[in-house]
Amino acid sequence: MKQHWLQPPEWSWNITEGEATHVHQWVAPLGEGSDNPDLILYGAPLSRSSISVSGASLYPNEFRKMWKSFATYNLDEDVDLSPFTVVDTGDVTLHTTDILASHQRIQEATASLVASYPQTLTCMIGGDHSTTACAVRGIKDVYPGEKIGILQLDTHLDVRDPAELGPANGTPIRQLIDGSVIKGEHVINIGLHGYYNAKPLIDYAKQHQIQMVTLKQARKQGMVETIKAALHQLSTKVDRIYVTVDMDVLDISVAPGVPASTPGGMTAVELFDALLEIGKHHSVQHIDFVCLDPSKDSAVFETVKIGVYAWLQFITGRVCSSY
Amino acid sequence: MKQHWLQPPEWSWNITEGEATHVHQWVAPLGEGSDNPDLILYGAPLSRSSISVSGASLYPNEFRKMWKSFATYNLDEDVDLSPFTVVDTGDVTLHTTDILASHQRIQEATASLVASYPQTLTCMIGGDHSTTACAVRGIKDVYPGEKIGILQLDTHLDVRDPAELGPANGTPIRQLIDGSVIKGEHVINIGLHGYYNAKPLIDYAKQHQIQMVTLKQARKQGMVETIKAALHQLSTKVDRIYVTVDMDVLDISVAPGVPASTPGGMTAVELFDALLEIGKHHSVQHIDFVCLDPSKDSAVFETVKIGVYAWLQFITGRVCSSY
Amino acid sequence: MKQHWLQPPEWSWNITEGEATHVHQWVAPLGEGSDNPDLILYGAPLSRSSISVSGASLYPNEFRKMWKSFATYNLDEDVDLSPFTVVDTGDVTLHTTDILASHQRIQEATASLVASYPQTLTCMIGGDHSTTACAVRGIKDVYPGEKIGILQLDTHLDVRDPAELGPANGTPIRQLIDGSVIKGEHVINIGLHGYYNAKPLIDYAKQHQIQMVTLKQARKQGMVETIKAALHQLSTKVDRIYVTVDMDVLDISVAPGVPASTPGGMTAVELFDALLEIGKHHSVQHIDFVCLDPSKDSAVFETVKIGVYAWLQFITGRVCSSY
Amino acid sequence: MKQHWLQPPEWSWNITEGEATHVHQWVAPLGEGSDNPDLILYGAPLSRSSISVSGASLYPNEFRKMWKSFATYNLDEDVDLSPFTVVDTGDVTLHTTDILASHQRIQEATASLVASYPQTLTCMIGGDHSTTACAVRGIKDVYPGEKIGILQLDTHLDVRDPAELGPANGTPIRQLIDGSVIKGEHVINIGLHGYYNAKPLIDYAKQHQIQMVTLKQARKQGMVETIKAALHQLSTKVDRIYVTVDMDVLDISVAPGVPASTPGGMTAVELFDALLEIGKHHSVQHIDFVCLDPSKDSAVFETVKIGVYAWLQFITGRVCSSY
Amino acid sequence: MKQHWLQPPEWSWNITEGEATHVHQWVAPLGEGSDNPDLILYGAPLSRSSISVSGASLYPNEFRKMWKSFATYNLDEDVDLSPFTVVDTGDVTLHTTDILASHQRIQEATASLVASYPQTLTCMIGGDHSTTACAVRGIKDVYPGEKIGILQLDTHLDVRDPAELGPANGTPIRQLIDGSVIKGEHVINIGLHGYYNAKPLIDYAKQHQIQMVTLKQARKQGMVETIKAALHQLSTKVDRIYVTVDMDVLDISVAPGVPASTPGGMTAVELFDALLEIGKHHSVQHIDFVCLDPSKDSAVFETVKIGVYAWLQFITGRVCSSY
Amino acid sequence: MKQHWLQPPEWSWNITEGEATHVHQWVAPLGEGSDNPDLILYGAPLSRSSISVSGASLYPNEFRKMWKSFATYNLDEDVDLSPFTVVDTGDVTLHTTDILASHQRIQEATASLVASYPQTLTCMIGGDHSTTACAVRGIKDVYPGEKIGILQLDTHLDVRDPAELGPANGTPIRQLIDGSVIKGEHVINIGLHGYYNAKPLIDYAKQHQIQMVTLKQARKQGMVETIKAALHQLSTKVDRIYVTVDMDVLDISVAPGVPASTPGGMTAVELFDALLEIGKHHSVQHIDFVCLDPSKDSAVFETVKIGVYAWLQFITGRVCSSY
Repeated sequence: MKQHWLQPPEWSWNITEGEATHVHQWVAPLGEGSDNPDLILYGAPLSRSSISVSGASLYPNEFRKMWKSFATYNLDEDVDLSPFTVVDTGDVTLHTTDILASHQRIQEATASLVASYPQTLTCMIGGDHSTTACAVRGIKDVYPGEKIGILQLDTHLDVRDPAELGPANGTPIRQLIDGSVIKGEHVINIGLHGYYNAKPLIDYAKQHQIQMVTLKQARKQGMVETIKAALHQLSTKVDRIYVTVDMDVLDISVAPGVPASTPGGMTAVELFDALLEIGKHHSVQHIDFVCLDPSKDSAVFETVKIGVYAWLQFITGRVCSSY
Repeated sequence: MKQHWLQPPEWSWNITEGEATHVHQWVAPLGEGSDNPDLILYGAPLSRSSISVSGASLYPNEFRKMWKSFATYNLDEDVDLSPFTVVDTGDVTLHTTDILASHQRIQEATASLVASYPQTLTCMIGGDHSTTACAVRGIKDVYPGEKIGILQLDTHLDVRDPAELGPANGTPIRQLIDGSVIKGEHVINIGLHGYYNAKPLIDYAKQHQIQMVTLKQARKQGMVETIKAALHQLSTKVDRIYVTVDMDVLDISVAPGVPASTPGGMTAVELFDALLEIGKHHSVQHIDFVCLDPSKDSAVFETVKIGVYAWLQFITGRVCSSY
Repeated sequence: MKQHWLQPPEWSWNITEGEATHVHQWVAPLGEGSDNPDLILYGAPLSRSSISVSGASLYPNEFRKMWKSFATYNLDEDVDLSPFTVVDTGDVTLHTTDILASHQRIQEATASLVASYPQTLTCMIGGDHSTTACAVRGIKDVYPGEKIGILQLDTHLDVRDPAELGPANGTPIRQLIDGSVIKGEHVINIGLHGYYNAKPLIDYAKQHQIQMVTLKQARKQGMVETIKAALHQLSTKVDRIYVTVDMDVLDISVAPGVPASTPGGMTAVELFDALLEIGKHHSVQHIDFVCLDPSKDSAVFETVKIGVYAWLQFITGRVCSSY
Repeated sequence: MKQHWLQPPEWSWNITEGEATHVHQWVAPLGEGSDNPDLILYGAPLSRSSISVSGASLYPNEFRKMWKSFATYNLDEDVDLSPFTVVDTGDVTLHTTDILASHQRIQEATASLVASYPQTLTCMIGGDHSTTACAVRGIKDVYPGEKIGILQLDTHLDVRDPAELGPANGTPIRQLIDGSVIKGEHVINIGLHGYYNAKPLIDYAKQHQIQMVTLKQARKQGMVETIKAALHQLSTKVDRIYVTVDMDVLDISVAPGVPASTPGGMTAVELFDALLEIGKHHSVQHIDFVCLDPSKDSAVFETVKIGVYAWLQFITGRVCSSY
Repeated sequence: MKQHWLQPPEWSWNITEGEATHVHQWVAPLGEGSDNPDLILYGAPLSRSSISVSGASLYPNEFRKMWKSFATYNLDEDVDLSPFTVVDTGDVTLHTTDILASHQRIQEATASLVASYPQTLTCMIGGDHSTTACAVRGIKDVYPGEKIGILQLDTHLDVRDPAELGPANGTPIRQLIDGSVIKGEHVINIGLHGYYNAKPLIDYAKQHQIQMVTLKQARKQGMVETIKAALHQLSTKVDRIYVTVDMDVLDISVAPGVPASTPGGMTAVELFDALLEIGKHHSVQHIDFVCLDPSKDSAVFETVKIGVYAWLQFITGRVCSSY
Repeated sequence: MKQHWLQPPEWSWNITEGEATHVHQWVAPLGEGSDNPDLILYGAPLSRSSISVSGASLYPNEFRKMWKSFATYNLDEDVDLSPFTVVDTGDVTLHTTDILASHQRIQEATASLVASYPQTLTCMIGGDHSTTACAVRGIKDVYPGEKIGILQLDTHLDVRDPAELGPANGTPIRQLIDGSVIKGEHVINIGLHGYYNAKPLIDYAKQHQIQMVTLKQARKQGMVETIKAALHQLSTKVDRIYVTVDMDVLDISVAPGVPASTPGGMTAVELFDALLEIGKHHSVQHIDFVCLDPSKDSAVFETVKIGVYAWLQFITGRVCSSY
């Protein structure tokens, strides 16, 4: 019997019901969406691999919960995102105490998705930066003959020595270079600034020809121009481009939810401009967003909101470039 | 195709899957649980009727989200709650700007539930204290010939004048007495203390023979004995007992999430003892928990946790008394 | 007898004593200031009409308390504001539970002020955005034959459907257009950006010819030039201009005290430049500032400080343009 | 002309208007209340004399602002406080950079009040504990021949060496003993516990026969009995009793607004019981409350609320004992 | 050359200089203290083994930093702790990404200390509860023929299945029982309450004869009597007693810094009484304190302060019993 | 005996051990570094001289603790700072209750350092702005015949009247001008904006020919150009330049740890650019950083991080200009 005025509890709803004007109504779970979606999303909720205590493992779910605050229409570009299809395949199931096993699973899950959906953009939501090495290795497993280039937005080089730390969050780029998965010259890092990389790490980067673009340089050249030039250059040298966005590239005043963010970092608008441009380049086939720890975020979750906004900018770029 | 290591996103799950060891697995949505449940739960997410700004409207959902942190086994009494059946009928649908319409809907929804499930305990989760007047009127609509008694755990009398404020959160007991729904002599308030009721309100209470039991008296007599005596006395005078728990009865140091809580209030353990005893009395057929504003709660949600614990104590009392 | 070293308690002071170097000494209560002041201030402390829980009703008083932190001299323009006369008429007295009655009172109070002081700027301090519809209707009541234009600084269009929500805070512009108080083509909204307006709302705006200026466009054109052009255009089409500043136009990183603020919004300096320019245009006769919830503000009350600063910029603009 | 629905801004009100059901309506400023009030209140907003950074100077005004949350009726004792007359003489005017001058002014202001109102209870609101030494010296200046006893509720002995620190907040009791204003044997400290007094300080206390009653002892004997015995004993040895309540006697979990509060301290109810009992003893003629730093208090100002409650308990005790 | 008024920066000091009135002056680093100290302290800063994100790895250092706020004199017992010798051997060096290796190192470090100092109490500061299993195994390695009993103060049984989770923080007691290091009947858990252990875990505990003493039972019997009886019983059955204090046994209102703390838990005073009594029993030779996450603590670090206080109570008990 | 896997507790380490890649390893305590260092650092932890409650006295130590988060390599300029020698002489020892004595000691300590190290840059870390007057007087004591110019980055003029306040934090520039230590025309203040200086103070500044450069002017001219022009102009008129950075020049949204910061202030990047330029000018021989109160800073210490970054920018400028 239907009771007067009572609606079922929210937790028993199918959240995809209703008109799809907002992001939570637009994204489909695997099996309910398109067979050949434009973008596949998956979470890698691992952060016990972080050198410092990190709650970045909580990000995939907080990222999803914030969807209902975002419409699927971008006013700046006057474009409707809803024809673009996004499927959420959920999270990689991780082991509680065996970090290497968890890394292996992220690699296998990525390979599985990339192999199954060769035409689809993949988007991994971390987790800490150690997950990026897993994802890139997973792609390499599927395309062993291809050269992979990396565009990294980051305050840090992330080339600390895995021999010392194991495959921790400060090491992914070095893991990949030392493991011959990628070449240093195929890495471009935009967002470096200030006093956050010790000299031995800079020496390593120079020795392996990692291209370091400081934020000061990017601002002088223009963020959009800088991104465009970087992607153009990479696309002439590699077969596919993986973009990794370490959210610590953001300025500390806008990103309290990224413990490693620093003064002098990117503004939110700079990041949004960068991702809009990145989205427009079809050589980019994989992207991740890592190192956002929602448990440190402000009461209004401003960092998580920036995270969703940035992700939507990437999609907006892709949609705009498809016309 | 099943992907390696990937599990579906949490938001696409049926939350009642899995072994029912925790509360979120035990409570059923309407239609999936028993036809004749032991307790029916419904939310009344209204707090724009509060004199001061209140986010108590957010409580029903935060209450539900906290279920996963509670097992269905009570260790103190060594009793398994899982055979007791609880159905969640969801929230009353309210109007955004017409408060009187919202009040009317709460009254009708309550009447509908009470009429449909005459053998079942009803439990309303507020919302502010104005919702209690609606619920009691709804019961009275179904049983116009019965005398209803009220056991109120509260720091305040809540007998401010609706002629001045409208049916706001400071007025429910006076609405009911002045409206001849209940008699003042059938109200027992336990938890009063300190300097939180102005003299004109105390004068009103004395004039209408509301029984005021201060916390100091309850502590001298013992909380369990005080509750037992109050329920015994009420049960000899009325046909059914409605218990209303204004969470502001709690001490301010344990209940940051109740803006009206004060120093000198109940400890959590006192409240838990009271509710265990209340649950044991079968003359109690209706209960509500009101005035908890989760947006003011501490970072660890201690007040919401007390709210769930208190509700489970009531159920534990009922289960223990059924043996 | 005067006691040694003791001064009377602050609460027994007349706060307007002393040299008028700061704002709290400069603003006069009604009856003590000029008969024909330059600007009249009134509060509309209503926010129970908000869709989400809002403490914007607390803003008028917090706005006033912050005055003592501001001098009446603007250093950037090197101008002394003290010859400009400001009268504070206090707040509209509202009903606790009848929202429509409260809306009616705001409309009547506005009409009363506009009729009594035809040469005076009116400035309403909200409250949520539903109060804007009341204020504009009040002005229309006094000048039924005039066309009123609206310059709106806002992240949102605020054209949700009152048929669904009642006259809630998401609906004021639509209330006014659907109620034929204003025309859509006489509304210019500056500050729109990102993913915060669903497609049906944008469709409504386009259909009614609301002029949407995104923040991206405003930044490209220059904020001052954008404002200047908008006011010039409006002034050629309408008889008087009402400016409504929804503080959620601000970026979330500078406005924690506006729950609806978002990433990608206006910086404080952009807002200050806009209001300085707005103040210079004598076609602007009415202004309001809405949706700032001080209970959500940071510990240093940065959002309230921006609110006072922005208001003083408007006055500075007017003072500068009077030379 | 009166405007429709507008009421004057709060800051232009005389706050003592209206029915005196709450504390802010009951307390009178000097000159407007009784010529011979029952209690005189004055603030000593000095805390730059604190060893650690302290905002206790902010307490007198925050204490007063909280009055509106308290009724003048005590429900536990069922007694109306309103016939008891309280006058607020305001704050001692202090010097910004000359701490010794400020101390001197507190001493002179106290002397002035004590001399002018010999029948009246004095109540000083600090400030830090250094102000207590000033107040006691002020009383001694008026009654040089009298023996003054001190009942101290405190976690610390406050007998650090002024030779080392100057007259800082850790030194008042030692200042008074070493300065022969009081005798050590006329000091009873209740509330000591744990590991918060270094051995040399305990040695000093033992040598000067300060009576140390630990909280453990007080709990075993009963708080009320302990206070009663202490006051009885003091009253047989001295001419007048000064009670100093260092709010750091409270447990850290209930008093976040007292930076020096510790685990294992008094509960709020223990403090309230103690002050009710203290109020009943007519040998007590002076009281102060010190060391509460509102800038450290929780968002709901629980410590300030305890401060007002405790002060009202003292008054309730006096009112009850007057029957 | 000594500069006028300048003292060396604090970071270049030897912190053990000065009179030893406070804890940081009393504890000695290994090699500087006694060869045969009364107690040896070591940190096990591991919490990446926690099921939920935990910063308990930060506790050993925050614990040490708080020492300067504690004197070495206990006023309640009127006893000077300074003759008791404490040596801090520092922290176990852990691996960043290999949790099993870290566990192995904690086991070996414990064994090394126990073997080297057979007459000395060992005190491990965690870290999460997984470290307890390591420590007990380390002791067993040194004394393979001895029976070890465990007194556990905890809200949880911590007998989740390591087969599912690996050796995570919810599993230590089960690891030890299933691994035949201890027997279930030699475990007494005091502090259990409420709804925080699912039925399968209680079934496991009953099956293995773990003795469960609820907080309700302990309060009825008296905390000191309960502890005394438990230790007496254990001492008749085992060769040595290991006490593990999971700080989540504390009530959530006093322990914001323990994410797993709950309503209805121990008060600080109950914990202090328990540890004083535990310290008095010479059959207790090992103790640990785990699961306190300082990054979640309140601004005044109340939980860390309780942690230091509790540890000193244990030492006070031992000192008192040595007379 | 070395224990397995145990490392000594951190507090017993010599912090300067290890490779000097980070700031805490690079700065030397007095006596261990160079005899003729490039820069000498000293703290002036005085803030009880502040008009409002201030914890700026805590800044020197928090500043130092943050060093470990900064590398000694600047990526933007691609320059290694480690050859530049910095000595930390520690803090001036201050009096607890005699503010004038503390001021005198800061003056003498400064004079002592300036006289002893005539070739060395001095850098004072405040404390509040009253310390600047002491430092400049100390320099004047050593070089009585020299003209000292001041470049002040500040939101305020700091020319309040010491006759009224004593030598409090709002008065230093006026103390120096009125005391004939400097001339008003040799003061350039960059960063003034908004409504934060009352008219009488602006009148004083104009009368004494203090050069006021508003932030609006600086932004129009370019921050680097503005600084360059100011230093060039000063260097033609004075013998040595003292730079004082009142951290309240920063915008409130980036500097929660500076209670006097305001909306409309400098961005972090503007401050960093300014200090890089300042560092390049060899006429600058003294610098201070004042008014940062770490107790008010955000949870991630963003203001303290900006403080360290700004200081390193100054050093980077000097290093770059030395090539």
